[in-house]
Order: sequence, then structure tokens, then C-alpha cells
Amino acid sequence: MTAPPVLDLTADAVTLTRQLVDIESVSKNEALIADAVQAALEALPHLTVARRGHTVVARTELGRGSRIVLAGHLDTVPVNDNLPSRLDAETGILHGLGTCDMKGGDAVILRIAATVPEPVHDVTFVLYEAEEIDSRFNGLRLLSESDPDLLEADFAVLMEPSNAVVEAGCQGTLRVEVRTRGERAHSARSWRGVNAIHAAAEVLDRLNSYAPRKPVIDGLEYHEGLNAVGIRGGVAGNVIPDECVVEVNFRFAPDRSEDEALAFVRDFFDGYDLTLTDSAPGALPGLDRPAAKAFVEAVGGSPNPKFGWTDVARFTVLGVPAVNYGPGDPMLAHTKEEHVPVADIERCEQQLRAWLEGREDDR
Amino acid sequence: MTAPPVLDLTADAVTLTRQLVDIESVSKNEALIADAVQAALEALPHLTVARRGHTVVARTELGRGSRIVLAGHLDTVPVNDNLPSRLDAETGILHGLGTCDMKGGDAVILRIAATVPEPVHDVTFVLYEAEEIDSRFNGLRLLSESDPDLLEADFAVLMEPSNAVVEAGCQGTLRVEVRTRGERAHSARSWRGVNAIHAAAEVLDRLNSYAPRKPVIDGLEYHEGLNAVGIRGGVAGNVIPDECVVEVNFRFAPDRSEDEALAFVRDFFDGYDLTLTDSAPGALPGLDRPAAKAFVEAVGGSPNPKFGWTDVARFTVLGVPAVNYGPGDPMLAHTKEEHVPVADIERCEQQLRAWLEGREDDR
Repeated sequence: MTAPPVLDLTADAVTLTRQLVDIESVSKNEALIADAVQAALEALPHLTVARRGHTVVARTELGRGSRIVLAGHLDTVPVNDNLPSRLDAETGILHGLGTCDMKGGDAVILRIAATVPEPVHDVTFVLYEAEEIDSRFNGLRLLSESDPDLLEADFAVLMEPSNAVVEAGCQGTLRVEVRTRGERAHSARSWRGVNAIHAAAEVLDRLNSYAPRKPVIDGLEYHEGLNAVGIRGGVAGNVIPDECVVEVNFRFAPDRSEDEALAFVRDFFDGYDLTLTDSAPGALPGLDRPAAKAFVEAVGGSPNPKFGWTDVARFTVLGVPAVNYGPGDPMLAHTKEEHVPVADIERCEQQLRAWLEGREDDR
Repeated sequence: MTAPPVLDLTADAVTLTRQLVDIESVSKNEALIADAVQAALEALPHLTVARRGHTVVARTELGRGSRIVLAGHLDTVPVNDNLPSRLDAETGILHGLGTCDMKGGDAVILRIAATVPEPVHDVTFVLYEAEEIDSRFNGLRLLSESDPDLLEADFAVLMEPSNAVVEAGCQGTLRVEVRTRGERAHSARSWRGVNAIHAAAEVLDRLNSYAPRKPVIDGLEYHEGLNAVGIRGGVAGNVIPDECVVEVNFRFAPDRSEDEALAFVRDFFDGYDLTLTDSAPGALPGLDRPAAKAFVEAVGGSPNPKFGWTDVARFTVLGVPAVNYGPGDPMLAHTKEEHVPVADIERCEQQLRAWLEGREDDR
């Protein structure tokens, strides 16, 4: 057993971010970082700590009339020559794997846990494993199934990178395979067969005719998208192909359920053989709820819609309104050049602190 | 060294076909069958025999005013649970790998070599290796380069399966990759990218609008074909793809050169990035030439155009008019169920004999 690194929760959030980044924690390798996080939180007498797999949950038990969740995942995508962390003091940019997605956010969570012992809402801090891989390993999902009571709350903030601006809700996503069929023949006598790739022209033509819906929900304009993300067909260079498969991804606004989204796609590709391969619901922004309203007012700025799918949808399924709010540009996530502005980390910590201490921040 | 099996050229052509079939000779494994063929031909005093690799050439040297070639390949596609040969006496069908493509034809060649010692034309018998694999191994190609004089002739008959009816010339074939390009983006924000698969719709639409040319050459109607034989595109299930490649096969009538065929395809896909990946010329039927005319008259029946590409094109390049004429249905070639009607083998032998003995067959 390697002794876990010791996290210093009295250090500033940027230093703490570096400590977290420098504990390599590619998905499925979160034991060490979870141990370190658990030890640091267990040292705080005002928190009750639980561990499930490599997911750590710490809660205040102050008997407040409301409870909020602050959640962040501990894992990263694979290392890509971007460890250890590197702070560019001149530009105020912290570089390295996980700086943006999302150890900057994790550091903010740990700093709040350590330094706001009497928040105005009870707080549940969730630091979880395996967000970057197949959802069957996702720590938040597993926790929501094994211990839903640990996630009970009036509101949740997921520290996904959002440029330190509230991104509300998320769009759903589903994937289907649209299949055309034909009949094989030697390509020297092509008229004896039926070309399944040629038949896919109509599928692509329909995609080209698609006009995205952009519904406005709680004042936020979402933006749907229906796209081929893959196509394959062909048997050999001298054979008329008898099958072509177009893989289509539908990103749908959170006012549609998964069933409604699938019905739309089925209707859109009416007449074709269609197989659902993947589906995840969206999450309504829920900005009309008092807890969300109060949060948005506290942290300031104009909320944006979240186009990508995030774990906020898991909270929605539990009946907990949730938003994305964290340091860093989501466009940098999963890139080799991943980085985060120090100012984003500082701003997120400051705004959350102001909110949970019940005071107006001097923004 | 294994002693080669002894071929009995005094046996009937069907028995001889079985002997050849039962010597397994998948491409690159023709040594044994070539040894057997060479030994059998060298035993015939009226022939001069040469060997190049596993290709055997035997020639009469009678000083006739004209020379013809009878050619067949000795190799087969891989074994597919279809050896040894099996004769169904009731239906008159001989089953097994190579029965159709093309040891029935090879047996006819060997029977003619053995039993027509004084043909009206000098004859060059060519039994060659590696027709079923990459053309750089093709024995006829290698021979045409190393010893073009051995292939000098006024006319050639290639014993490719053609249902014992003359199939004249052959269509050419070329393959191109037609490429569309786009710009990657996360599929949750698809409007930031350009979908290269969607752009391929126009490529497929053009293919669907294609009307095949069917030129009549020497009384034979050819039939061109332009077909997608493969399509590929896609980066990941959540990425707008930046490239899509459509692999297109053009089968062109022998009145076009390869250059003209490529020019047609370039024009057809005007505006697209196009890469030529493969090209082989067609062969004109040459039925207007006296030698061909005489052959067609001798063997009877109505010649058909050959749609597929065959080695007759190699003779054309050498300036030797050539036709396909052999037992068996070309549609059965390369199938597990490959077989040949005994009657086809007998008919081919009978007609060739009649032609080379200079008499009208009693058909």
C-alpha cells in the first residue's frame, strides 16, 4: 500500500488544484486520490464522511432548512504528455491534465468544505470516480443507486468547467444506427444487385434538410442537433454492397424526454431500419426554482444553456435541480493543451463562499 | 521433394479435370501442379516445353502461317471445405474447388495438347500461376514481360468460365476514392463544425443519377457501371466528422482507354478531391479480326460481351486479340459451391478440337 499524498486544505485553491492534478487519476485509477481526499475531509470535525468505491461523500449536519450538493469527479481522461501541472505565473494560467476538467472545481469544493464550517445551507460534498468512461462505472450514478439518501438535496452544483458562469440544465443525447439494405452482386454486373450505399443518399439528404429546433426554456435558448457521426459500408472493391450503416447522434433540448426524442428521430427517418444504441436524458435548467434562483443571484452573471450532456442529468432524475458551474473552458476539456485560468478558480471559490456564507460578494 | 502426381492425358477431360482439382493449388502453392503439368507435356514429342516460375508453356512448331494461344491459370482461391472433387453422376455435375475456375478449362487445354498433334494453326499452350491474387504475381503478366515472344500469336483463347460460349473482350475497371472534408466539433455544438458525412450526400446523389452507357462494339452490347463499393467516415460518437471517403468502382466498356475512363470519372465528380487507387484496361472484343471470326464460326453459338475484367486484357496489350471461352458458370467462381457441368467440359473440348483439326463440328 502506498500512503496517500497529504492534501493541504489550508493552502489556496490554486495550490490545491496543483496537488490534485499531480496525483495521476485516470479513470479506474482513482484509489490514491480518493484516499487523499477522504483523509483530508475526515480531518475536518464538522463533516461526516462516507466512502463508496472511490467516491467520497462529506456532509454538514447543521439542521439547516435546506441542503445543497457540491459535486465534482476525481478522474481524468488518459495522460497525454500533460503531467505534471505547470503554472505560468506571467499569464496566470495553470496547465496540465485535469486542471480544467475538473480538479480546479474539486479544489474549490475542498476549500469550501474546509473553510466554511457553518454554511447557510447544509452542504453535501461529493467527489466521485469514473465520470470519463462508460456510465456503468460512473461513481455518481452508482451512489444514486446505492445511497440515494446521501444525494437528497434542494439544489446541486456540478463543478463542470463553464468559464465560471452558470450553465443551466443540459441537452440530452441519443444515438441510432440507420441501416439501408441492398443485394450483393459482382460490381462488373452491378445491375444484378442493389447498392445499399447509394440508398444511403436519401438518409444523408434528410440530414441535410434538418432544421434545428432552438426552444427557449427559463430564458435560455437551447440548440438541438441531428448529425451523422459515422458511416460504414462495403464488402470488397468488386462487390455491390448489401448494407450501409449511418450512425446518427441527436442532441435534444431538455424539454423533450428520451422517449419523445426517439419518437422524433424515428419519425424523421420514417421508412428506415433504426436501432437505438445509446440514450441519456437532458436536464431542465430549473432556474424557476427558488434554490436555483438564489444561487444564480448569489454568483452573478447571466446563465447560459448547457449544450453538452453532463451529470447534472443524474440529479434531475433524482428530482434535484442542478446547474453546471466551474472554472475553465469546456472546449479545452480532453485536449492535450488543457488549462485553466487561475482567476476562474479564484472567482468560483469566492462566489460559492459568498453564497454559502449568506453574504453579498463585493463583485 | 514430393514426386509430382502423374497426369493421365489419355483419360477423358472430366477425369483429367478431377486429377487437376485434387492437386490442391491455392495461389502461391502451384509448384506441385506445375510440375505435373510440365512432366505430362514434356512427354509429348510434338511439343517444345518451357517453364518460368510455376508457369508452363508448350508450343507446336509446325511452321503454320498462324499461331493461336490456349491459356488457363493453374491456381485457385483458398480451399473452402470444397475438396476433393465429387462427381454427381446423376446430374452430370462435377463439384469442387477449381472445377469451374478453371481446371475444367485446363483439362481441355491438356487434352488438346495431347490429342491434336497436327493442328491447322500452330498452338501455344500456357498454364500459368497466380491469377487469383495481386497482379504483381500473375504468371501471364510475368511471362508477357520476361518472354513476350513466347506469347506472340494471331489470336488467343483464355479458358475462363463462360458457360462454353464465347465471351469477347472485357470491360476495364478503375477505382477512385472521392473525399469530402469538413471541420471537427463536439456534436453537442455541431453548428461550430462542418459535417463531412453530410457533404457526401451529393456524391451519392450523383451516383444515383448515373445512367450507364451501353455501347455496342462488334455487335456486342457492353454495360458500364459506376458504383460506390465502400464508404467510411466518423471520428467518435460525439464528434462532427471532418472526413468522409466514398470508394467508387467504374467498370468501363473497352472502347474507352484507362485515361478516358478516368477523365470521365473526374468530370463526373467535378469539384471533389479524387484519388485513383486502381486501374486496369479493358479489351476490345476484336471479333472483326479474321482469326477471331474463324474461331467464333468454328465453335458456334452467339458470342456475349464479357463484363468482368479478365486476363484477355493482357493479350490485348500485347496486340493479340483474345476471347474468353471455357466450361462453367462464371457466377459460381469463388463460391464454396463451385461446380461445372460435365457437358460444358465435353463441349469445349469438342469445339476446340473441331476448330484446330480444321473440320466443321457436327453440332
